Amino acid sequence: MECDYCNKEAITSSYGKNYCKEHFNMYFRGRVKSVIDKFHIKGRMAVALSGGKDSATVMHVLHILGMEIVPFHINLDIPSYSKSSREACRQLCDSLGYKLEVINLRNYGISLENEEKACSVCGTAKRYLMNRFAYENECKYVATGHNLSDVVTFAMNNLANANIMNFRGNKPYLEGKEEYRMIAKIKPLFYLKDDECMNYVSINKIPYTKEICPHQKEAPTIKIKEWLHEIEEKRNGTMLNMAKSFWKIEDMIKEEVKLRRCSICGYPSYGKICKFCKIRKKHENFS
Amino acid sequence: MECDYCNKEAITSSYGKNYCKEHFNMYFRGRVKSVIDKFHIKGRMAVALSGGKDSATVMHVLHILGMEIVPFHINLDIPSYSKSSREACRQLCDSLGYKLEVINLRNYGISLENEEKACSVCGTAKRYLMNRFAYENECKYVATGHNLSDVVTFAMNNLANANIMNFRGNKPYLEGKEEYRMIAKIKPLFYLKDDECMNYVSINKIPYTKEICPHQKEAPTIKIKEWLHEIEEKRNGTMLNMAKSFWKIEDMIKEEVKLRRCSICGYPSYGKICKFCKIRKKHENFS
Repeated sequence: MECDYCNKEAITSSYGKNYCKEHFNMYFRGRVKSVIDKFHIKGRMAVALSGGKDSATVMHVLHILGMEIVPFHINLDIPSYSKSSREACRQLCDSLGYKLEVINLRNYGISLENEEKACSVCGTAKRYLMNRFAYENECKYVATGHNLSDVVTFAMNNLANANIMNFRGNKPYLEGKEEYRMIAKIKPLFYLKDDECMNYVSINKIPYTKEICPHQKEAPTIKIKEWLHEIEEKRNGTMLNMAKSFWKIEDMIKEEVKLRRCSICGYPSYGKICKFCKIRKKHENFS
Repeated sequence: MECDYCNKEAITSSYGKNYCKEHFNMYFRGRVKSVIDKFHIKGRMAVALSGGKDSATVMHVLHILGMEIVPFHINLDIPSYSKSSREACRQLCDSLGYKLEVINLRNYGISLENEEKACSVCGTAKRYLMNRFAYENECKYVATGHNLSDVVTFAMNNLANANIMNFRGNKPYLEGKEEYRMIAKIKPLFYLKDDECMNYVSINKIPYTKEICPHQKEAPTIKIKEWLHEIEEKRNGTMLNMAKSFWKIEDMIKEEVKLRRCSICGYPSYGKICKFCKIRKKHENFS
């Protein structure tokens, strides 16, 4: 099969178009650039590397697009998984000529070992540390690896649980609020599906870990993702339309809960004390 | 198996509970009553009977709940299907002691025969004639047979097509606007699933037509409905949660298009001339 844009052999396809390596990369990076351009993204950007394929993709594309990036990784101290993740991040940063900053969760007194709600604690910790890292390193943005499939799955799961308030942030760019030390968030892969990201890392031989977090269970979201991919196969573009719908819905949500600053750490919080500081306190008491 | 509420034999189940006929009817009618009570529904209500199981169910339950109802049927003149639908409506009204009002679409110069967009024309005509019938017969409400499965499927399909504006009306009760001759709409089956309605008609031997409209094609919505029922089987209550989510979303949508009155017929319209009058004009020109 030939690439639809030149006479080279096609190595992948997307939305019914066939691509050679070069033209797939052009297409893929173009989708990322459209997010950057739409929201006039310019300036230092912290890039959260998990070690997985999606955040590796974000870093690789932003580097090629010439953005000013500060890569960092949060070490969660999960046996085997964390080591392999860290190594993948190191390899990626080395290959592109960046110094990798590593934040250790244990330095905050938090351990996921023996933690019943490991996934919830990890989620809170990552969100907190990402924002704090970006703030302390004078970055205007934090970029994460959330792709189109993640965004739609997350929203669908919230629909299925009647959690409309969780729709906040269901868009490619979320403005920061300086007065609350809240850094703007950007999802450069908002328009790109799971399999497209997988193709991007494999075509460009980008290092990432194939290890799966041992805490990841057969979550209901996996079922939803499977179904979404089934529908997508039958009606190409459905996920993109859904993401646009969720984005429109996000725009309509009024911020009902008032943001403030945590009385302990000074970072953004919806209560007197932020969720992260509450977790720290709890873990201190048990150690 | 025994009924969960008495020692009679259970004949059906729903959300993990087993019911005898009497207790299923209590449960089912209770769900309808909760809509009536929540929105303080009181006064004359036009009930749109299509001949199908859902609108027959609405009429039957509202009658038992002692509401003041005015049943009507729109004759679409679709060979075989319309006859069987009309007969089912007649039978139901006879059995409950009501006079059935029949509105003939052909009296408005509209024919679905040879109409390329039959489903779209039919949809517009039904919405228009329902509202007009209720207005002319001094009803405060129009009740329709939309059940939980319909509501969620419709919303999901709009999500998949990025039609957020079609979310308007995604709730059990939509207020009327007297100044525009717009009658309030109510969906008494908002909390009840397709299979629950099917159980209700079969348990209570309510007459309805099993004929399917010949215009109904393998629509994408059928695929969505199938999937929703699959998810529902695995996680009972998902559809209800989704409906609640869509309802919350509906509440957030700002009415962006201004309503006015059609310059020809005087009924509500989003443009100078309403969709129904436009169709009438087109059909006049071709007849």
